[in-house]
Amino acid sequence: MAAKPAAKNRPRQAHARELWSSDAHDRERKRDAVILTAARAFRERGYHNTSLDDIAKELRITKPTVYHYVGNKEQLLFECFRSGLSLIMSGFEELKHSTGNARERLNHVIGRYAAAITSDFGWCMVQAENQDLSPAMSKKIRALKSEIDQGIRQLIGAGARDGSIRKCDAKIAAFALAGALNWIAYWYRSDEPLSPAEIAGRFIDLFNLGLKPR
Amino acid sequence: MAAKPAAKNRPRQAHARELWSSDAHDRERKRDAVILTAARAFRERGYHNTSLDDIAKELRITKPTVYHYVGNKEQLLFECFRSGLSLIMSGFEELKHSTGNARERLNHVIGRYAAAITSDFGWCMVQAENQDLSPAMSKKIRALKSEIDQGIRQLIGAGARDGSIRKCDAKIAAFALAGALNWIAYWYRSDEPLSPAEIAGRFIDLFNLGLKPR
Repeated sequence: MAAKPAAKNRPRQAHARELWSSDAHDRERKRDAVILTAARAFRERGYHNTSLDDIAKELRITKPTVYHYVGNKEQLLFECFRSGLSLIMSGFEELKHSTGNARERLNHVIGRYAAAITSDFGWCMVQAENQDLSPAMSKKIRALKSEIDQGIRQLIGAGARDGSIRKCDAKIAAFALAGALNWIAYWYRSDEPLSPAEIAGRFIDLFNLGLKPR
Repeated sequence: MAAKPAAKNRPRQAHARELWSSDAHDRERKRDAVILTAARAFRERGYHNTSLDDIAKELRITKPTVYHYVGNKEQLLFECFRSGLSLIMSGFEELKHSTGNARERLNHVIGRYAAAITSDFGWCMVQAENQDLSPAMSKKIRALKSEIDQGIRQLIGAGARDGSIRKCDAKIAAFALAGALNWIAYWYRSDEPLSPAEIAGRFIDLFNLGLKPR
């Protein structure tokens, strides 16, 4: 199914290898290829079981070339984390011209969030903080996570004001939403019969309407 | 607040140390003390940063005494995992004589689940599988997790039949519920102003009624 990240990104992987054997000198695209390859390797083998050598081999480049794009392995994990997070951030940015109520805007973010977690970067987004990172790096990651959390809380608060969301504890609701969405990284597999968009739709249905019949 | 596990269990910790200096020969209680002390150490310092020596020192016993109760560190993590999980299992067992509808029974399990995750064993329950365990141990843990997952799905299915739960995708709803509940381990701190019971109450409210006004 084209909508699945594992299948969708496979051609990009092959393309990533070709970047270095072609005449292209697109620094940003090469850097993106290093990050994507690392994200997949970390997800498949774990962060501590993956070396920069493994990633270089996978891309058929040298380790110094990897270092040229990212300073060290921790920085590489951070870039994987940030790549996933930017997919959620873009969900918030797309709301700038939205005329929908707060609940509709929140549902849009839930869709983008589910897409991010089911992407190749999902594992790194959820697991980065469990990898014994330096205190400075943990702090950076927590700050970015907090931005997302605050964005969700604000939408829930806005919904209470515009009447589109039931009055509830915004902190707990935001944690419940993010927890349910983050947990997708633990059970989602490339052979999952539901597409990321279908999973998002069922999450939106559940969180909007609840389990009790209406 | 007495209901919080960190505060509630602190006297048990002091008591755990005294077990070995007293005349008591209660093997099971001593074993429980080893498991509880390990669960706290793993949560505070991480599994790989905690040695059986650390746990022995904490309890003022020798490492061979720790080995007397559990075979190795991986087995100790498993016992911590199982201790937490048994709190959820007991939630299901308590339902045997329940006359409530399926949604009320599910809410009871959500309450026990939240209590388990906010307990000293919460970290081990959620993090055990991320610790590079042996394939055999990972398999055991996945099998126990699957039991809980199946139990939740069955309650959701029963709710669809008795009319207490809206027809929905039981697999996705069970994953969303478990994900939201498991994620508590990532944000819950002993200074959290809400008690575990209050957190459970807000989760039950959210998952029962949804965000859309009724």
